[in-house]
Parts: sequence; C-alpha cells; structure tokens
Amino acid sequence: MNEIKDIYQSLDRNKVVKIQAPATVANMVCGFDVLGFAVNEPYDEMQIRFSDTAGITIINDDEYNLPTEPEKNVAGAALLAMMEEMEENFGFEMTIRKNIKPGSGVGSSAASAAGAVVAANRLLNDRFDNETLVRFAMNGEKLASGVKHADNIAPCIYGGVTLIRSIFPLDIIALNAPTLYVTIVHPQIEVRTADARSILKQKVLLKDAIKQWGNIAGLVAGLLKSDYELIGRSLEDVLIEPVRSILIPGFDLIKQKSKEAGALGGGISGSGPSIFMLSRDEATAKNVEKEMHIIYEQLGLDHHTYVTTVNHSGVRFV
Amino acid sequence: MNEIKDIYQSLDRNKVVKIQAPATVANMVCGFDVLGFAVNEPYDEMQIRFSDTAGITIINDDEYNLPTEPEKNVAGAALLAMMEEMEENFGFEMTIRKNIKPGSGVGSSAASAAGAVVAANRLLNDRFDNETLVRFAMNGEKLASGVKHADNIAPCIYGGVTLIRSIFPLDIIALNAPTLYVTIVHPQIEVRTADARSILKQKVLLKDAIKQWGNIAGLVAGLLKSDYELIGRSLEDVLIEPVRSILIPGFDLIKQKSKEAGALGGGISGSGPSIFMLSRDEATAKNVEKEMHIIYEQLGLDHHTYVTTVNHSGVRFV
Repeated sequence: MNEIKDIYQSLDRNKVVKIQAPATVANMVCGFDVLGFAVNEPYDEMQIRFSDTAGITIINDDEYNLPTEPEKNVAGAALLAMMEEMEENFGFEMTIRKNIKPGSGVGSSAASAAGAVVAANRLLNDRFDNETLVRFAMNGEKLASGVKHADNIAPCIYGGVTLIRSIFPLDIIALNAPTLYVTIVHPQIEVRTADARSILKQKVLLKDAIKQWGNIAGLVAGLLKSDYELIGRSLEDVLIEPVRSILIPGFDLIKQKSKEAGALGGGISGSGPSIFMLSRDEATAKNVEKEMHIIYEQLGLDHHTYVTTVNHSGVRFV
Repeated sequence: MNEIKDIYQSLDRNKVVKIQAPATVANMVCGFDVLGFAVNEPYDEMQIRFSDTAGITIINDDEYNLPTEPEKNVAGAALLAMMEEMEENFGFEMTIRKNIKPGSGVGSSAASAAGAVVAANRLLNDRFDNETLVRFAMNGEKLASGVKHADNIAPCIYGGVTLIRSIFPLDIIALNAPTLYVTIVHPQIEVRTADARSILKQKVLLKDAIKQWGNIAGLVAGLLKSDYELIGRSLEDVLIEPVRSILIPGFDLIKQKSKEAGALGGGISGSGPSIFMLSRDEATAKNVEKEMHIIYEQLGLDHHTYVTTVNHSGVRFV
C-alpha cells in the first residue's frame, strides 16, 4: 500500500475526468500533411479515472466493437506512449463513446488518441505540455494508419487551425482564424487511408508544387488577416485532390454546387471520403448542406452531414 | 498642336518625377517564385518627364552601357507595355542611374522596370493601380530573363514582403513584417538566371515539397505574428538551394557562420550569386557582414556587402 500511496502523492485518486474530443479536418485543401482544423461537431466522449489495476482498462460505450487491448486501440496506444515516459506505474480506466464514425475522414482515430492523453494528463495535474501530448497521441495515429502524422492530432489538442511545420522535430504553430462555418458530408463509402496514400505519386512537377506553396502561403495569410476572399482563392489543390477525388463519388459536383451556393471553398477532409466546405455564415453553410443532400440523394448514396464551426478550444473538459 | 494639347489635358506637361527604385530579394529561401521583399539599399535613381518626341527616349547616367532602344531596355519594355494600354501617344524621356549592379541577383532589372512604370504613372496622375503596374513591369523581366515573374517586381512596387500567390491571374498579397535587418553579400561572379533555372529538376519528391510548403506556411505565419524564432526555423529550402548553391563559392560556410553570428537565417537572393541573411538587430547584421568579408577574403573573391533593412514603401518619390 505504501507504493500506491507514493505514486498518487499530490494527485486525487478518485478524480474522474470527462472530455469531448472534437472531429478534425486534415490537409485543408492546399496544406497536405501540414494543416488541420478542429470542428465543434461531431465529437467523441471519454471518461478516465485511476484504476487499482496497473495498466490500461478500456470500456467501449458504443456500437463499433473497437479492440479493448490497449496496444490495439488507438486511445490505448497513445496512453501507453505517455505511460512509458512516467516513472510511476499508474492504472487507468477509460470509457470511450465514439460519435465520430471510424473511417469517415474527420479524425476519428485522432479524437480517441488525443482525448485519451489530454484526459489522463488532467488526472496527472497537467504534467505534460500540449506539444508533448501531441507526440504521445501520434502513436495512436501510427497504429491506425501506419504513419505518425499530427495534422488531426494537433488541431484536436490545440483547437483552431494548426500548422505542423515539421514532424521531426515536432513544430506546431497555432494559427488565428476568423469565424468560419463548416459543412461536412460523409458519404457512406469506405476509403482506406492506406489506399488514399498509395495512389499518390512520389514525384510531382516543380511547377505544380510552386502553385501549391503559393496557395498555402495565401491561405495562412488569409486566416491571419481574416481575409475571406483570400482564404477562398487559396483553397485550391493542384496535386492531391485531382488524384484522390476520383475515389469519392460526386466530388466535383459537390464542390461546384457548394461554391455556387456561396461557400468560400473546400475539398477532401483528410484522405476522405468526407468532404468539407467553409462558409462565412451559417445560412450559406446550410445552403451548402442542402446541395450536398440533393447530389447524394440523386446518386442514391447514404450520407451524414454536419453544419458546424471551427472549434477554437480543442479537447474540452465537461 | 491641338492634338498635343488634348493628350496633356489635366496633366502637367513640365512635371519631372524623380524616384528611387529599391533592390529586392526574391524567393526568400522557402518561397521559390512566390515570395520577395524590398530593401532600403541599394536602389536605382530614375527621372522621367514628358518629351515632345513621341515614344521613349532613354538616357543612361551610369557606367553599364545598357541599351537605349526602348524594346531592348527593361525599363523601356515595361514602359512600352504601359503605353500600349493608353490611347494617347505620349512621349517620355527617362534618365536612369543604376546603382544596383545588373546580374547581382537583387532585382536590378526589376528596379528599372518597376521604377519606370511607377514614375511614368505619377506623371499621369496615378492612372493605374499597383497591380496593373506590376503587370506592365513584368514585361521588363520577360526581356531580362525570358520569364514573366513578379517576385522582384511586386515587392519593388508594393514594398515590404509580398506573396505572389498566382501570376495568371495576378494575385499579390502584401504581408506585414516586423523590423528585419538584412545583410547582403554580392560575390563578383556571374550566375546567369537562365543557368540557375536550367539546373533545377522539373520533378521533385512529394515529401520534399511537403517540407517546403510547411516552411513557407511557417514563414508567412512568423512574419504576420512577428515571431522571429519561427521566421528563423522556417528559413529552410530543401529543394532549390541544395542545387543552386553549388554555383556560389563559399555558400554553405557563409550560411553557417552567419547563423553562428546570430542571423535568423537566409539563403540565395533570387537566383544568385548574392546571398542574404536576416537579423533581428543592426549589431547582428553587422557581425554577419564581418563573417561574409572574412570568408570571401579567404577565398580571394571580390565582393560587395550591404547592411540594410526591409523597405516598406517600395519605389520612393524624391
């Protein structure tokens, strides 16, 4: 008992932390692998407490039958990475209710991984800083997709729009953004991240790459200057979208009709299949949603939509 | 005489406009073909007035023996492009004293072309806006290098740091920047822009392009947030510099020693051979200059240096 008492020194053994971990949109059109933003809906709900049993106990409170072995679960893998950097041998019990459908392309795995470490860190009186938490949570992404990437994890933890300038060493920059409404449509098809990655060419034309970095520079400037027109003009992807969008039925039409309905622009969320569109106001975002419905109803494709806003707080404590 | 009277209606026929057209640094390391900034020194001096003779008369007031036929002179070519868009058949007399050595890589041709159209526009009571002036001046760049590019022209006219998000259609974004000191060294060797361009590969690795657009996004954010550390970390070019720097003796050593002396970072100015380094304060910029001197003296290479600041006004009226 002495040992247990020691490791919980200054910590509240009976504390329960409840959080909401938001969905995120990676890439943001021209920012492949380096930009992402969090949205206010949907979000996963998680609850974590210390457990008398060492190690991680995972309880799923949803329909997805995700693995409960920590090393096979993205939230577990993230938390394991955190525990490796601690001297104490804590036990954690984590209950997860996923509202973000796995495979939808809006950072479902990132929400679990980020939520787990942010929640556990609160139990530990915020021992680690955000950048370190991102590093831990990236282990969940590695489990989910084989690659340690942070373009969902970082916005999920920091909130708002984040730039991951570099992964090794990790360099995350929070970017201020004006009010932005987000319409997301998730067509019920499967696009495996690994497939979406494997169809990309390893080499690209320098002249296309120049267009891309002109656009990302314009997008960052547009966000920081709250210049909606510039944001709209910069939401152009000449490299990735033309290749990946062929995996998403109705993509071109949705983009065209969304812009006609007043959207600033948008594209594939992460590696798809979800599509996101940014708008200046809620009415436009809802008109965009209507267009998305019409197109997918015509195609006879089951789909979910969300009209939400950019989330500026990241994982939220409830 | 009636005709002459008509075309000068509301204009002061005897006005003389004197300007200083600043040197500029294109590319800014990670912003190949899309970023550039103006500096306060060196600058070209130009003077323009209406002439009774139709067309353009060019008088060179320097040692460079540049062509005086308008269609062979970059300032003339820019002014000719402007005249094509005017109904009136004006005559202009332009005196040019170049202080920016042609071929030095700090926008010598851009200064002549931009200076000419800005000065002529003032004679015409500012008939054209800055973006249109950039479009005219790009014809001078086409004459000089075969390519219509704006990464020297735009900062020369707008001042400060400019992003050219797109050339067709032209989309120029002025970026606020904090105080930045600039050290420039011009080794007296010739690097032809055409050569510097031809050694670049047409295809690049996607993973390198991703690094590059992470860096340009970081640089733009660093400038707009006045975050010097971020500016420094983002001044990295994994694509162009490794290829082009082999044309510039001592490049790697100058970069290394400049950073050791406290520079935020820097690289090739335009297509070279000049090298620029950014610093937070004047003392550091002067220490960087000393390091540059030492290195080129050891290499026995003639060189000029400038310690200056980012110019926020562009072409200046005297």
